Amino acid sequence: MTKNKKVSAAIVIIGNEILSGRTQDTNTNTIALWLNSIGVKVNEVRVIPDIEKTIIDTVNEVREKNDYIFTTGGIGPTHDDITAESISKAFNLKYEIHKGAFKILEEYYKPGEFNEGRQKMVWMPKEAKLILNPTSGAPGFSVENVFCLPGVPSILKSMLGGLKNEIVGGKPILSHTISLRTVESEIAKSLADIQDNNQDIEIGSYPFFQAGKLGVSIVIRSEDQSRINTCESQILDFVSKKKIEVVNR
Amino acid sequence: MTKNKKVSAAIVIIGNEILSGRTQDTNTNTIALWLNSIGVKVNEVRVIPDIEKTIIDTVNEVREKNDYIFTTGGIGPTHDDITAESISKAFNLKYEIHKGAFKILEEYYKPGEFNEGRQKMVWMPKEAKLILNPTSGAPGFSVENVFCLPGVPSILKSMLGGLKNEIVGGKPILSHTISLRTVESEIAKSLADIQDNNQDIEIGSYPFFQAGKLGVSIVIRSEDQSRINTCESQILDFVSKKKIEVVNR
Repeated sequence: MTKNKKVSAAIVIIGNEILSGRTQDTNTNTIALWLNSIGVKVNEVRVIPDIEKTIIDTVNEVREKNDYIFTTGGIGPTHDDITAESISKAFNLKYEIHKGAFKILEEYYKPGEFNEGRQKMVWMPKEAKLILNPTSGAPGFSVENVFCLPGVPSILKSMLGGLKNEIVGGKPILSHTISLRTVESEIAKSLADIQDNNQDIEIGSYPFFQAGKLGVSIVIRSEDQSRINTCESQILDFVSKKKIEVVNR
Repeated sequence: MTKNKKVSAAIVIIGNEILSGRTQDTNTNTIALWLNSIGVKVNEVRVIPDIEKTIIDTVNEVREKNDYIFTTGGIGPTHDDITAESISKAFNLKYEIHKGAFKILEEYYKPGEFNEGRQKMVWMPKEAKLILNPTSGAPGFSVENVFCLPGVPSILKSMLGGLKNEIVGGKPILSHTISLRTVESEIAKSLADIQDNNQDIEIGSYPFFQAGKLGVSIVIRSEDQSRINTCESQILDFVSKKKIEVVNR
């Protein structure tokens, strides 16, 4: 992949606890920010239950459409951790003990502590590549373009750094935010005109409420800083004509 | 729909700002908790960009598979708010001024303030049903089983109450949590046996780290309280045999 290609990803959050509302997902945000910083655009996110067929079908669908897939959750030692076996089936690979993972956990735990429950965590798709875990030992793994990470946010965060050389991003996606003391309806028409005239740029408008006052953040996103600058000056132009206060930029 | 039927939903989060990581989605959690409390099970969540074709295809796919669909985002006054027009196209309905919504906003704003930008918010699929907005005036809408809500979390929250009579849930899904001072690998085998013997019950295992100590929360979910109680006593049985401390239940 060259640095000029657009590189895309999908995130698949596996876990009944997110769907029931018991747990607030934060892994999507962590992975999205990290991918964004290395030039990978997240095209879609799916949150799905701990059901084998759903995991297999979802992963097989999204991996055809995206350069990279990141799954979170379901790689621990308990019965509801079925990601590794499901990924094996999705790729028609044998589900077996990974010798490298076995060695890592055998050394990680004290003698006698590497019990049956923990040994479940070394079962992976045949020839999976390991993703090292500096926090709690048990590695994640990847098969082709699918990277399987744990669900615990602090552990997941600690593992992303180790993936840096595995993921080849495109041009980083740059963004610039202009925050205005106004409401969306005041600027909607002017902003739409600028978007029309700059179709290669992504312009988003997000109302906010801060310290008792309403405002709007305009976010300009592009791979090209000079295009962002052009867009910004067009925005500041109408902002000044309308005498709208710029909160920050 | 009778109270005994299983009722399902999908949530579709529409917004580039979630995919880029700029914004942490919390609407999934809000909607999931609310649906859970009224006996509706969330089967899947999709996060998708502000792209018309993606919105149309996604909504048409998930509405065939679920009783209810909830979308969030993209119903404001700016150019990137394309949910209402996309939903019109998904249902092959005319995209037009909704007279009821027009009347609401005409009364909501001071004379002269109901400008062109704001008038965009009354364009909806033909014969859409309104979802009232007690916070900021502009209503959401529904077409058949698809309910379109705004992206701003506080506004969305204030609108859910008004939907109570529109959504017919099944039996509420009950859950019970037992928190243990242990690690997952210690209980994995016993828990798997209990899950095997109680296949109508959903048993989840979630490690936690609190006040410097590791623990595991076991979550038992069912529509039937007596089945939860049976499951709980089987769990407490092995917990006591293994001399594991119960943190709370």
